[in-house]
Amino acid sequence: MHSLLVRALLGALLVPASAAQSAAAATAEPPLSKQSLITAARLRDIGMGGTATDGSRAYDIVESLTTEIGERLAGTPPADRAVEWAKAKFRKLGYDKVYTEPVTFPLWTRGSEEASVVAPYPQHLAITALGHSVGTGGALEADVVEFANIDALKAAKPATLDGKIAYISNRMQRFKDGHGYDPAVAARKDGASIAGRLGAKALLIRSIGTDHDRMPHTGLVRYKDDAPKIPAAALSNPDADLLSNMLHRGRPVRVRLSLGAQEHGMVTSYNVIGEITGRSKRDEVVTIGGHLDSWDLGTGAIDDGAGVAITMAAGALIAREHRRPQRTVRVIAYMDEESGSFGGKAYAAAHLAQLRQHQIGVESDFGAGRVYALCAGIKDSAWPVMEQIGQVLAPLGIVTAKGVGDAGPDTGKFAEKGMAWAQLAQDGTDYFDWHHTANDTLDKIDPKALDQQVAAYAVLAYLAADAEGSMGSGEMPLPKPGD
Amino acid sequence: MHSLLVRALLGALLVPASAAQSAAAATAEPPLSKQSLITAARLRDIGMGGTATDGSRAYDIVESLTTEIGERLAGTPPADRAVEWAKAKFRKLGYDKVYTEPVTFPLWTRGSEEASVVAPYPQHLAITALGHSVGTGGALEADVVEFANIDALKAAKPATLDGKIAYISNRMQRFKDGHGYDPAVAARKDGASIAGRLGAKALLIRSIGTDHDRMPHTGLVRYKDDAPKIPAAALSNPDADLLSNMLHRGRPVRVRLSLGAQEHGMVTSYNVIGEITGRSKRDEVVTIGGHLDSWDLGTGAIDDGAGVAITMAAGALIAREHRRPQRTVRVIAYMDEESGSFGGKAYAAAHLAQLRQHQIGVESDFGAGRVYALCAGIKDSAWPVMEQIGQVLAPLGIVTAKGVGDAGPDTGKFAEKGMAWAQLAQDGTDYFDWHHTANDTLDKIDPKALDQQVAAYAVLAYLAADAEGSMGSGEMPLPKPGD
Repeated sequence: MHSLLVRALLGALLVPASAAQSAAAATAEPPLSKQSLITAARLRDIGMGGTATDGSRAYDIVESLTTEIGERLAGTPPADRAVEWAKAKFRKLGYDKVYTEPVTFPLWTRGSEEASVVAPYPQHLAITALGHSVGTGGALEADVVEFANIDALKAAKPATLDGKIAYISNRMQRFKDGHGYDPAVAARKDGASIAGRLGAKALLIRSIGTDHDRMPHTGLVRYKDDAPKIPAAALSNPDADLLSNMLHRGRPVRVRLSLGAQEHGMVTSYNVIGEITGRSKRDEVVTIGGHLDSWDLGTGAIDDGAGVAITMAAGALIAREHRRPQRTVRVIAYMDEESGSFGGKAYAAAHLAQLRQHQIGVESDFGAGRVYALCAGIKDSAWPVMEQIGQVLAPLGIVTAKGVGDAGPDTGKFAEKGMAWAQLAQDGTDYFDWHHTANDTLDKIDPKALDQQVAAYAVLAYLAADAEGSMGSGEMPLPKPGD
Repeated sequence: MHSLLVRALLGALLVPASAAQSAAAATAEPPLSKQSLITAARLRDIGMGGTATDGSRAYDIVESLTTEIGERLAGTPPADRAVEWAKAKFRKLGYDKVYTEPVTFPLWTRGSEEASVVAPYPQHLAITALGHSVGTGGALEADVVEFANIDALKAAKPATLDGKIAYISNRMQRFKDGHGYDPAVAARKDGASIAGRLGAKALLIRSIGTDHDRMPHTGLVRYKDDAPKIPAAALSNPDADLLSNMLHRGRPVRVRLSLGAQEHGMVTSYNVIGEITGRSKRDEVVTIGGHLDSWDLGTGAIDDGAGVAITMAAGALIAREHRRPQRTVRVIAYMDEESGSFGGKAYAAAHLAQLRQHQIGVESDFGAGRVYALCAGIKDSAWPVMEQIGQVLAPLGIVTAKGVGDAGPDTGKFAEKGMAWAQLAQDGTDYFDWHHTANDTLDKIDPKALDQQVAAYAVLAYLAADAEGSMGSGEMPLPKPGD
C-alpha cells in the first residue's frame, strides 16, 4: 500500500482551519449518543481481550487463510479458493449478507527465474521478477551499469546503457509510517521504462525493503505506453550489496538473467463482501476492508491477510452486538490490489450512484502492527464526530491526527470520487522487512497486536455507522486530477 | 561448528583442582616476560583500532572472499578458486611461508530441490536438502507423520511410518553460547537413519535455526551403515509452522518432495596454510584458523569466512611486528569442515609426528560475534600462562573461564590426539539465525566486532607462541573413546 503521507495534501484540503473547527464543535450537539459510546467502548474491550475461541479472533482468521490457502496471486487457482474461503468465513462469522462483485484484471504469472554473475566473479544472485514484468525469452546476458537512484538513471546518456543492464541501487529507509517507501519505490515502478528508453536490455533494482535478508521483494512495475518493455527484477538486499561491491572494483560485471514471466490477458474474479445490516438506515453503509489477493512469494499474512482478518473480525464483533448501529457495516475483501487496485476501482465504479450512501470508507493494508493514529478525510462539520470516536480509541494508544492520512489503495479509489474516508494508521516500522517477499508469513504477526486493531476497527465502524449526519461523501471538494 | 559445551568434559578432565593450581602459580616464575606482554597489548590495541586500509583488516578480507568467490562447497569450482584466493591473500598479507596440504573427502552436490503440499491445502514449501542426503530419484509423494523430537521418532511403531514421510518438528532454542544446537541437531544428523529403519520414505525436519525467516538451514546428515538411506530435507521455520498447523487440523497431509542431490565419490582439495616464522623455536607452532569451505546456499560470510578472515588478519598483525614471538604462528584455512571436518582430520593425520611441537591450537568457527571468554584444554602447569594471557585480553571484555570450552570441529581433531587447545568463545546469540542458510552473507558482519576478535586472536597467538614452556601437547590424558 501507499505510505501515510500520500494523501496528506488531500487531507489538508478537507480539514478545516482549527479556529473554525472549534467554533463548530462548541455550538453543535454532541453527535454520538451516550448509549452509542458505551456500546463502542464495550466492543473495544471485548476485541482487545482477544479471548474468542470460536475462530472469530483475527489471528485465527489469518491463520486459517494462510494455512488453508497460502499465496493467492489474483487470477490463479489459490486466489479462486480464497474467494470461496472468504464467503464461507463471512457466513461462519455470522454476517447477515454475503455476496461477491466481479473484478476484471490482467493475469500475470512469474514462472521460473534465475540470475547469476557470469564474470569476473561467478556467483548466483537471489532475484525475483517485478510484478507484470515481461519475461526474458530465454536467458539474456549483459554488463551492468549502476545508478544511485532513479534521478541518476534519468540523467544517463543513452550511449552508456545501450545493450546493458541498468541497476538502480537506492536503499529504502525505515520509518514508522513507511514514508521511506515512496522515494525508493519509484525505481521499481518507473525504472524499467526510463531504462528501456535509454536502450537498456533489462532493469535490476535493489529490493524496496528495509531488511537484510536474502529474499527479494517483488511489486508492480508500470510500463509507459511509449517505452520499450524490458524485463525487470529485484535483487535481495544482500545481493544488491554484493553486486555493488563487485562493481566498485572497477571491472565490467556481466550478469545473466532469465525470467519466465508471462501475461495471460484479462480474467475475472471477485470482491467478496459481508454485511452486518444496520438497525435503521440500512441502505447507508460504512465500509471497512483489506485485500484478499497477495503476491505469489509468501503466504500473504501481513499483505494483506491481516487486513482481511482484522476487518472481518471487527465486523463479527458488531454482528454479535444486540444494539446494531443505524447504518449497515460492509466488510470488503478486495480482489487484486497488487496489480493496481482493481478491486477498489471495480467497487468504486459499481457503487458510484450510491456515493452519498457511503458514510465513510476505511481500509487496513499496512501489515499487522498496532494502530497509533486516527486520520480522516471528512467534511468540516463532521469533525466533532471524529473527535468523539477518537476519545473512545484513546485508551488503545491511538491519537487523532488532522491534516495527514491516506485512504488506502483500494478505498482510495472511491475516495477519489468523493467518498469520506478514515485511516487507522499502523506502526509499519518492520512492515517493509517482509513486504512482497517469501517472508510474508504468519509468524510475523503478533496476535495481541491484531486484537488492538480489531478493537479500533470495531469502534470506528460502529460509531461512524451510528452517528447522526453525514461525514461528507459527495459533498466535499475532490482532489485535483493527478493528485 | 559444535557448541561451547561439547568438550566441557574434556576441559574438566584437563583442568587441575583449583587448590593445586594456585599453589603452582604461587611458586612458578611469571612465564611471560614484560616485553612480551607489552608487545601483545600493542598488537591488541592496533587490532582493535581497525584502521588498516591496505586490505589487512578482517572485514576487508571477508568482503574479498565473499565478493570474489562467494559460496564454496568443498570440491566444487568455487572452492578451488577459494584455495587460490587464500594462497594469494596470505602472500599479500606478508606471510613468510604459504603452502597447501591435501585433503580428500566425498563430493556431494545439491541439484534442484522442490517440495509442496499436495493435499488438502496445496502450497509450496521452502525446503533444502540436508548435506549429503541421497536424492529422491524423481518426485516422491507421501503422507506426513509429525514427531515432536527425535525421541518421539525413536519411540514410533514401524507401522505408523511405513511408506510415510517422517517429520521432526523440534525447535532450536536461542542461547549466547549456542548450546541449543546440540539437542535440536540430533534430528538433522540422526533422524534419517532412524526414520529409514522404521520404513519411512523420506525425512523432513524443522530447520535447526533460531530465526523466523523463510530460508531453510542445510547441514550434514549422518547415515548409519545398517539403515536404509532415505532422502532428508529441512523446512524453513515458517514452513515448519505451516506444516504443523495443517497437521493439527487432523486430516492427512500429503507432501511431494523432489531432491536432485547426488554423491560423486572422493575428491582432493587443500588446506591452505600461511606461516609467520618464529624468532627462535621455529619448528614449534601455534595454530589458529577457520575453514575455507562453506555450504552452497549463502556466501559463507559467517560460516566461516569470518573465521578465516579473523585468523588471517591476526597473523598479519603479528607478521608486521618487529619482535616476532619465539615460535612460528601457523594460520590454517581448513578445507571441507562442513561434510565432516575433513581438513582437520587431514591436518591431524599429517602432523601427528609433530604433536609435541604444536604448542596450542585455536579455531574460529562460530560466526562474527564478539569474543567473551577464553577457555583452554592445557596441562595444569600451563595455567599461569593462560591467566597472564587472560589479563591482556580482559580489556576486550574477555573473561578467562576454566572447565568449559570446545577445541572446535577442525582443531578438535588434533586435540583428540592430545594437542593442547584454547578457545576464544564468541557471542553466538544470532549465529543460528543465519547458519547454513542463503542468509549467511556479508551484511550480517559488524566490522568492529571482527576487529575485537582479531585483537583477541593476535594476543593469544602471540603470547602462546612466545611463552616459556609447553602447554601440554602430547603430555595430557586423552579423552576416552566416544567422548
